[in-house]
Amino acid sequence: MPLTQGVNAQRFWSTIERSAEIGQGREGGLSRLALSDADKEVRDVFVCMCRDAGLTVRIDQVGNIFARRAGQDDSLPPVLLGSHLDTQANGGRFDGIVGVMGALEVLRTLNDLQHVTRRPLEIVNWTNEEGARFSPPMLASGCFAGVYDLDWVHNRQADDGAVFGEELRRIGYLGSEPVGGRDLDSYFELHIEQGPILDAERVQVGIVTHGYSSHGFLVEFHGETAHTGPWPMEKRRNALLAAARLLVEVDDIGWDFAATDGKATAARLSAWPNKAGILSDWAQAICDVRHDVPKAADVMAERVRRAVGAAASRAGCTAEILDHWSWGGRIFDDELISLVRRHAAALGYSHRDLASQAGHDAYFLARVCPTAMIFTPCKDGITHNNAEYASREDLEPGLNVLLHSVVSRADR
Amino acid sequence: MPLTQGVNAQRFWSTIERSAEIGQGREGGLSRLALSDADKEVRDVFVCMCRDAGLTVRIDQVGNIFARRAGQDDSLPPVLLGSHLDTQANGGRFDGIVGVMGALEVLRTLNDLQHVTRRPLEIVNWTNEEGARFSPPMLASGCFAGVYDLDWVHNRQADDGAVFGEELRRIGYLGSEPVGGRDLDSYFELHIEQGPILDAERVQVGIVTHGYSSHGFLVEFHGETAHTGPWPMEKRRNALLAAARLLVEVDDIGWDFAATDGKATAARLSAWPNKAGILSDWAQAICDVRHDVPKAADVMAERVRRAVGAAASRAGCTAEILDHWSWGGRIFDDELISLVRRHAAALGYSHRDLASQAGHDAYFLARVCPTAMIFTPCKDGITHNNAEYASREDLEPGLNVLLHSVVSRADR
Repeated sequence: MPLTQGVNAQRFWSTIERSAEIGQGREGGLSRLALSDADKEVRDVFVCMCRDAGLTVRIDQVGNIFARRAGQDDSLPPVLLGSHLDTQANGGRFDGIVGVMGALEVLRTLNDLQHVTRRPLEIVNWTNEEGARFSPPMLASGCFAGVYDLDWVHNRQADDGAVFGEELRRIGYLGSEPVGGRDLDSYFELHIEQGPILDAERVQVGIVTHGYSSHGFLVEFHGETAHTGPWPMEKRRNALLAAARLLVEVDDIGWDFAATDGKATAARLSAWPNKAGILSDWAQAICDVRHDVPKAADVMAERVRRAVGAAASRAGCTAEILDHWSWGGRIFDDELISLVRRHAAALGYSHRDLASQAGHDAYFLARVCPTAMIFTPCKDGITHNNAEYASREDLEPGLNVLLHSVVSRADR
Repeated sequence: MPLTQGVNAQRFWSTIERSAEIGQGREGGLSRLALSDADKEVRDVFVCMCRDAGLTVRIDQVGNIFARRAGQDDSLPPVLLGSHLDTQANGGRFDGIVGVMGALEVLRTLNDLQHVTRRPLEIVNWTNEEGARFSPPMLASGCFAGVYDLDWVHNRQADDGAVFGEELRRIGYLGSEPVGGRDLDSYFELHIEQGPILDAERVQVGIVTHGYSSHGFLVEFHGETAHTGPWPMEKRRNALLAAARLLVEVDDIGWDFAATDGKATAARLSAWPNKAGILSDWAQAICDVRHDVPKAADVMAERVRRAVGAAASRAGCTAEILDHWSWGGRIFDDELISLVRRHAAALGYSHRDLASQAGHDAYFLARVCPTAMIFTPCKDGITHNNAEYASREDLEPGLNVLLHSVVSRADR
């Protein structure tokens, strides 16, 4: 049965505004780090909203929140839709939040329409998508998809010494549900584009065909402390310098591929003692490379690996790649992509295919069920910045495409 | 009246061992950061030892400790001798400590000999020489010499947010004495060489003729946060990258001058948010350059200044040199240098002239009174490392030279 109306964009907008009250950062932005007090607060508000909508809330052992609406045949695997409520330290009000609150709006609309889908529907809020507090990003969806071990996730440590599992318990979101390991019909994630294309071209809906191939690295360097004065240049083993050399080389790699829209990022550097007067004997660097062409991304990643050795050697240090993560490629489901495109067209929205250049929980979900992403425009492509912005009018078309796509899928 | 005996090296060694019990770090080393609980503990022990030796202890408003032994004519300006009891985070048991405990041993020996010098003698322990907690190094001797303003010093902040003045009060060493502004006859500082020359050449005493000319810089970069994925290379303003580029260039400068024993150091890098997934909009770097030839050091410093602008520009950021400090050159007093050399020879010790390549409180003291430094060997020149080592036999000759030089000067 086709739907007779779309989402209530005003109601949706008010949930975005409610969320924007929690964990405020710089002007207009949010600083709502995973498992912080602010994260607890927004989770509490979100769970309350879900229960008000008649949904059954379950929390799993990594704090992912699932809010379920029964289907006509509740034994069938559910259609999952959602994103994340955590933000970067200088984050915006929309990144992730639009996908979770948008999923809630879809289910509220179905309540209004008294439309019970054949398959059950579940909203999800994934824990620690940003990786702004606990590394790596998409930690809990990775665990859900079986990529990360539960104990490993629980033991992840933040810069302030906080431990993931302890923080989860502290804020009351260490659930009892097993993580993953159950059948899902499909996963839909609505998200702001986090790039300039839709906004620049005034296109209302982005059909995400694939993700840029991305490789991230956590690299550790070991050297030796010594005095910055008398210690001869040729004896120095300055781990901070090794890490700095790697990050500069990574940036150079990015510029070498910039003409084909490749990117490389010097994201993080930590060192110890990291003080005037003494050489550091320990450093870590986080960097990543991304390219639309998987083979180009592989070349970039290989250059990073070589740069690790070269940077360490130049600084007299040893190096180890402690962690390497990769995502992207043509992982989304062709049938779901077509479904989303069809609904965008049927609803009369301007739309275009495009790639995601950011990491998303959807990348891990694509390993366990057919997955699709829908993009909405955001102003000038600005994100991970308090100036991030999308208007209600920017978001409504994507929301309606999500609504119709999910219902089609769940009713089939 | 010439002295009839030298110092009690065993008694001196036991004070070094007592000090080594306080603020232990890695095996064999110390981690006794300025104004920490460990610094309070070693200060308390030191003050107690001074009082036991009949000295009058006074604390000034930046926590410098002065322990005075009256002279026959106590109205004359005192001869000052000392160094510092704070250490690096991975520091040794000797750097600085030898100069303070050595000064105490000199005064204890004069007590044994019942030798009252014509001029008064004062031991000094300078606060925060290392700069391992509060930047810059030699903070309190700089204030004593009128280089740093008292309020500015009190407001210096550590990485953990601690404020210098508050920490001084907390550990009970916010004294009432004015900082500096009084006449001193002279200043002597005994110190381990922190370089390999004396140890390699098996020379017992180093006569410090001058200091390497050194320039240190604290540089701040400002950029803009953005997503590490979609944000185009040409729009990026990554402050972390700007700082990394500066530090790499500084190291290259060091290598360009390495043939003439120049050194350059990438010492510290901090950034915010400094996380995977987001470009940092703020970074600070600390670096320094040193050369025996002042003109060469000036050229190196000028290259650093140019590198600041180039690194910022390459990374799309703005930069500002927040602080520039310099020291070294031919600042020590010719008469005192001759005096020290004469006593080393008279005592039958092997000795040689050499330059200091490290920063020392003596550099600031040289601005307010005739100053000399005496170096002792340390194993392999290792310092700012828990492996730093000097034996009792390594230290005794320097101690006796200090004793005789100070007495000559004070009795004249």
